[in-house]
Amino acid sequence: MKSIQATIITIGDELLIGQVIDTNSAYIAQSLNRIGVGVKNRIAVGDAKNDIVEALTNAAKSSQIVILTGGLGPTADDITKPLLNEFFGGKLVIHQPTLDHITDIFVNRHKRPMIERNRKQAEVPDVCEVLFNETGTAPGMLFKKEGVYFFSLPGVPHEMRYLTDNHVIPTIVKNFTTSPIIHRTLLTAGIGESFLSELIADFENNLPENIKLAYLPNFGMVRLRLTATGLAENELKISIEEQFAQLKLAVADHLVTDEDENMEVVVGKLLKAKNQTVATAESCTGGFIGHLLSKHAGSSQFYTGGIISYDNRIKTEFLDVPEPILQTVGAVSQEAVEQMAKAVREKMKTDYAVSVSGIMGPSGQTNEKPLGMVWIGVASKEKVYSKVFYLRFDRLRNIEVTANQAINLLRLLIINKI
Amino acid sequence: MKSIQATIITIGDELLIGQVIDTNSAYIAQSLNRIGVGVKNRIAVGDAKNDIVEALTNAAKSSQIVILTGGLGPTADDITKPLLNEFFGGKLVIHQPTLDHITDIFVNRHKRPMIERNRKQAEVPDVCEVLFNETGTAPGMLFKKEGVYFFSLPGVPHEMRYLTDNHVIPTIVKNFTTSPIIHRTLLTAGIGESFLSELIADFENNLPENIKLAYLPNFGMVRLRLTATGLAENELKISIEEQFAQLKLAVADHLVTDEDENMEVVVGKLLKAKNQTVATAESCTGGFIGHLLSKHAGSSQFYTGGIISYDNRIKTEFLDVPEPILQTVGAVSQEAVEQMAKAVREKMKTDYAVSVSGIMGPSGQTNEKPLGMVWIGVASKEKVYSKVFYLRFDRLRNIEVTANQAINLLRLLIINKI
Repeated sequence: MKSIQATIITIGDELLIGQVIDTNSAYIAQSLNRIGVGVKNRIAVGDAKNDIVEALTNAAKSSQIVILTGGLGPTADDITKPLLNEFFGGKLVIHQPTLDHITDIFVNRHKRPMIERNRKQAEVPDVCEVLFNETGTAPGMLFKKEGVYFFSLPGVPHEMRYLTDNHVIPTIVKNFTTSPIIHRTLLTAGIGESFLSELIADFENNLPENIKLAYLPNFGMVRLRLTATGLAENELKISIEEQFAQLKLAVADHLVTDEDENMEVVVGKLLKAKNQTVATAESCTGGFIGHLLSKHAGSSQFYTGGIISYDNRIKTEFLDVPEPILQTVGAVSQEAVEQMAKAVREKMKTDYAVSVSGIMGPSGQTNEKPLGMVWIGVASKEKVYSKVFYLRFDRLRNIEVTANQAINLLRLLIINKI
Repeated sequence: MKSIQATIITIGDELLIGQVIDTNSAYIAQSLNRIGVGVKNRIAVGDAKNDIVEALTNAAKSSQIVILTGGLGPTADDITKPLLNEFFGGKLVIHQPTLDHITDIFVNRHKRPMIERNRKQAEVPDVCEVLFNETGTAPGMLFKKEGVYFFSLPGVPHEMRYLTDNHVIPTIVKNFTTSPIIHRTLLTAGIGESFLSELIADFENNLPENIKLAYLPNFGMVRLRLTATGLAENELKISIEEQFAQLKLAVADHLVTDEDENMEVVVGKLLKAKNQTVATAESCTGGFIGHLLSKHAGSSQFYTGGIISYDNRIKTEFLDVPEPILQTVGAVSQEAVEQMAKAVREKMKTDYAVSVSGIMGPSGQTNEKPLGMVWIGVASKEKVYSKVFYLRFDRLRNIEVTANQAINLLRLLIINKI
């Protein structure tokens, strides 16, 4: 079975000057992978005609599927549509359903007059199939040339996602026979990448040829991913599950989850299953733990709320951290975080609480308390526990790692490991 | 003056299956742009030898500078170093300063035995210049071939950033004569992309050939960027400042800032300048506004703290939102957010407060309150103001847009525009 390969081309100067981070490619790549299409490469090019044409031409040599995003907006720097029209030898015509849709958006929804610029968004090359865009004003387009399918999607993330889910993926499934790719991912915590690698050296050496192992360290934790290819789907499933079971066994002491999910999702599931709740008391993370706990749908079932005690005054007035504690051992201390966790749990009447206080940088350190020092506390009805961490990243990364370590400590408390 | 071009190659299967979002490229692109190096394209390839070699070979055809990140870790899926060694015809030798550094990290800092796998990280091809990595165990490398400089950096973001700042950029500045690129960016709020485009149509049509305008819509706001190239630096500066002044005038009613900075940075600066403070009361954003306000260094000067009142009980018990309000008009209402802002400001004794309550999705809507409906409140000593928004994104995006709109409303209150 010949495997189907895709190239993703993202268009926009903002990607080349680093003004915008490309999240679209990741979404498209995931969606393609799920249906067994491998991504050969991803390329970002500027709003420059020659570079886009070159990327298109190269992509068609190695891939049966080419997906472009960006450059379809209403403004003059959006050059993708006329370029594709020329590249595929078409002429621009009004697509009536799209024009009706745009008119509806402006006249009925926004109650604003429609201008010529908006009307032009309903023009499409007569050599493409229109991918109707329910979610915005720029239609998606599909061009076919010598067996290669070229999909052009707007760069606005939610529009790109809508068109990927509702047009791109169904069209590929219908028209290509894809060879299966299966991933299995697990998450470990509390062990570094190289020690983990030693621990599973035997496993890794004995992996069959068609299964690859990847290490994905992040937030002070390591994700391990097995990828199986090259067999029929049934055989692949059996073989990857066999290997994945062995891998889980090998890392059992450090295993957080055997799904490709984040720490906060694991904790959310634990709490929902037990019908229990958690509150947060955050200093140095400034609300980021609350954000992680509440960003997924359904979080109101277990996340009650929190106090962001950024200023020390708030630690005293809202979380009863005694003034003398702040003046002697300070806000970044075992005493402070344990009191914060205890107080927020009691005041918000939750089953658990988590608290943090630390020095995220780039300044604020003292002789005794280096940059990156952070205390994390967790509390249940029965127990208060705390632990100190020394991080060595930049401010934003320290915030992210602290939040993830805090949620991990909460997890360990919930499953009675601390 | 011939312009120097760069290609950025990111290595790792995780980039092609969409498991990880590439933030490294944006950082590198920004750094290169600042010294006048244009990025021709960015390409992401998997942990596959042929694909990496192909990318290297292609890059060298169009670029004088090639920057690779990723694949330098201690595990078996890290293939970049042996591959580069072969590609450039070297042999692997121990780099003693790096070995000393790794030994120090393990033995002195982590108090852990060093294993062979770690020792191997000190090996480098004898045909490269080592870029000493103070921040981690994988050294950076510089290879030169036929006038092209190839930099290989680890993919761990803070290590990549350290090596970019301390080795890559200084080396390029020393060895290449770059032609200047100047960007000027401003941020607008309260006007859509196509209306903005109408508003500045004359300006855009009269731009000189060497200055480009780009529209970057995000978080319900639009950034406008001018990019000037093709002249000597002094002339460029004069010409872009002239155009930028005109652009600012044209968008004056909607201008947030004439720097390339985020909304929360603008508000942080305003508050610091006035020596004033703000508190937050968040429901549907769950701490994300607090995170935005506190993620930048120096935020403790103006951000006091907040209440995350995710559960309605917390709105009543901590923010005195009357039960009858919750039972009649509900938590997503003008009454609720105005009370939340008022209460948190008074209780935390700050100059300003901002509050939000809304329906972020994917469920929770009622007949009267659609998905994406969100009330935002702001308060000062003199005034309480609120506004309703109807968003139409997915949950995470709704959270992000809400937080940004809330901070914008706070800005308008601070500058007496509401």
